Amino acid sequence: MNKPTHDIQTLKGAAAMFARYRREDSPKPTQWNETLELLLGHRSHRAFLPRKLPEGALETIVAAAQSASTSSNLQLWSVVAVTDQERKHRLADLAGGQQHIRDCAVFLVWLSDLHRLEELAKINGREAAALPYVELFLTGVVDAALAAQNAVVALESLGLGSVYIGAMRNKPEEVAKELALPPKVFAVFGMAIGVPDPKVETGVKPRLGQGAVLHREQYSWGEAQLDAINTLDAKFRDFQKEQGLPEQGWIRQVLSRVRGPDAMSGRHQLREALAALGIELK
Amino acid sequence: MNKPTHDIQTLKGAAAMFARYRREDSPKPTQWNETLELLLGHRSHRAFLPRKLPEGALETIVAAAQSASTSSNLQLWSVVAVTDQERKHRLADLAGGQQHIRDCAVFLVWLSDLHRLEELAKINGREAAALPYVELFLTGVVDAALAAQNAVVALESLGLGSVYIGAMRNKPEEVAKELALPPKVFAVFGMAIGVPDPKVETGVKPRLGQGAVLHREQYSWGEAQLDAINTLDAKFRDFQKEQGLPEQGWIRQVLSRVRGPDAMSGRHQLREALAALGIELK
Repeated sequence: MNKPTHDIQTLKGAAAMFARYRREDSPKPTQWNETLELLLGHRSHRAFLPRKLPEGALETIVAAAQSASTSSNLQLWSVVAVTDQERKHRLADLAGGQQHIRDCAVFLVWLSDLHRLEELAKINGREAAALPYVELFLTGVVDAALAAQNAVVALESLGLGSVYIGAMRNKPEEVAKELALPPKVFAVFGMAIGVPDPKVETGVKPRLGQGAVLHREQYSWGEAQLDAINTLDAKFRDFQKEQGLPEQGWIRQVLSRVRGPDAMSGRHQLREALAALGIELK
Repeated sequence: MNKPTHDIQTLKGAAAMFARYRREDSPKPTQWNETLELLLGHRSHRAFLPRKLPEGALETIVAAAQSASTSSNLQLWSVVAVTDQERKHRLADLAGGQQHIRDCAVFLVWLSDLHRLEELAKINGREAAALPYVELFLTGVVDAALAAQNAVVALESLGLGSVYIGAMRNKPEEVAKELALPPKVFAVFGMAIGVPDPKVETGVKPRLGQGAVLHREQYSWGEAQLDAINTLDAKFRDFQKEQGLPEQGWIRQVLSRVRGPDAMSGRHQLREALAALGIELK
C-alpha cells in the first residue's frame, strides 16, 4: 500500500476547493496556507452586529487597499467612509433600500477619481488631455476594484465581513451629490462592512468549474464551458435550497439579470449619468 | 512608567505601514497578521527565474480568483494562461516589447467575457439586451479586476511574484486575434507570473498618505490632499533614486502619463477597438 501523500494542510485545501466548486474533479492543491484558506472561504455578509469596527481597523484596511497595484502609480481612486446614520439611510434609499447599508458599521464608497490629477495638472499649468478617454475611465475603475478587493481580504483577516453594493450605480448623480463628489469622480460600487452576526449562516457560493473560466493558450467555447455551466446550474439550485432561496438555478437567474434595460434598476442610463458627472468616454 | 503596549505583531504592522507611506504619521495598527503582512508588502516583480510554476499552483490561483465576489454571481470574466514561448513573444511585441512577458513562467490574460451569457441566452431562446450597455462593460471589468487581485494575493502567498500589464490594451484587436477571443470578449490587462529572481531587488512603492485617499462622510479636496501629494512627490524621488531610476518625482511622472493621446501608446483608440470587438458602450 502507498503511504498517504496528503498532509493536513493539503486536505484542508481539497476541502476548500470542494466547498467552492462542489465537483469531484475540483483541483487538489499540493500547497496550502492560511491566506489561501481565507481567500477560498470568502462569502458575502449582509447581517451585522450593532458594533463599531475595532480602533484602527479602517486605516489598516485602507492601507491594504493602497498596497494593491495601481496603473503607473497613478492612484486614480479614492474612498469615502460613511458612518453617519442618516447618511447611511439616504444611501440605502438610493440603492433600492438595502437594509445592510443601514446596519453596517462603516459604508465605504469606492470612487474612480480623475479629479485629483486634473487639479494637479491645473496647478502645474499642464495639460491632462488623456483623462476624457475610455482608457482612463477603465483605469480608474480597475484601480478602484483592485484596491477594494485587497480591502476585502484585509478585513476578512481581521474577522470582519462585507458585501459589495453595485446598486451605488442605480442613481450615480444623487450619490455624487450626497458625497459632495467633484466633477470626474464617480462611485464605482459601495461596500458594507461590519462584524458579522454569527447567528446568521452564510454559505460559500458555488462557482463555474475551471473548464469554463481557465483557458489554455487560446479561448475556447465548447464542451468544457457547457459542462461547467450545466453542472453549476444544478449545484446552484442545491445552494439556493440550503439558503432558503427560490430554487431557480444559475442559468435562469443570470439570464433574468441581463434580459434588458427593465432589469437594470436604472443602470441602463449609466452612460448619461457619467456624462453629467464630467466623464466623457471619448 | 507605562508598560509597553506594542507586541511584536503590532510593531511589524507599524514597520510595514512606514515602508508603504514613508511618513511619521502613518497608521499604527492595533491588530496584525500574516495576511496583512503579505498585502502591505506587495511589490511588482519583473525579473523571474527560468522555472515553471509548481504543479497545481495555477489551478489554486484561479480558484482563489473565482472566490472573489462577482456581481450577482454573473461571473463575467475568463482568463487565458499562456505558456507557449512563441505566443508569449508575440504578446510581448504587442505590449511594446516588455521582456518580462517573454521571461515569465505563465502569462495570464484577464478577460471581460460577455460572450458566455450571450451564447447561453441564444441556447435558451432568451434576450440578453442588457449586454451592450456601459453598465455591463463596467461589470465585466470589475469582475475581472476583483478576480485578478485575489490571484495576486494567492500567488504571493505561494512565494511567487507578478506584474500587471496594462499594455494588453495597446492593440486590443491583435491580442484578441492571438488568443482567438470570440466577440464581446476583451483583454482588460495581462499578468506575468513566475518565481522571482532573488538577485534582483524590488522595493515597496510609496503611496499617497491616507489624507488624499480616505475621505470621511464626504469627499474633500484641500490641504490634506495637497500635503499628501507633495509629500509623496519627495518620497517618490527618494524611491526612484534607490531603484536607480530617473529622479523625476511623482507629480511630473503622473502628469506626463496623462498629458494626452501621444502618451497613451495607442490606447486613445480603445473605444474604437472595443466597438470592433463587439462591445458597444451604449
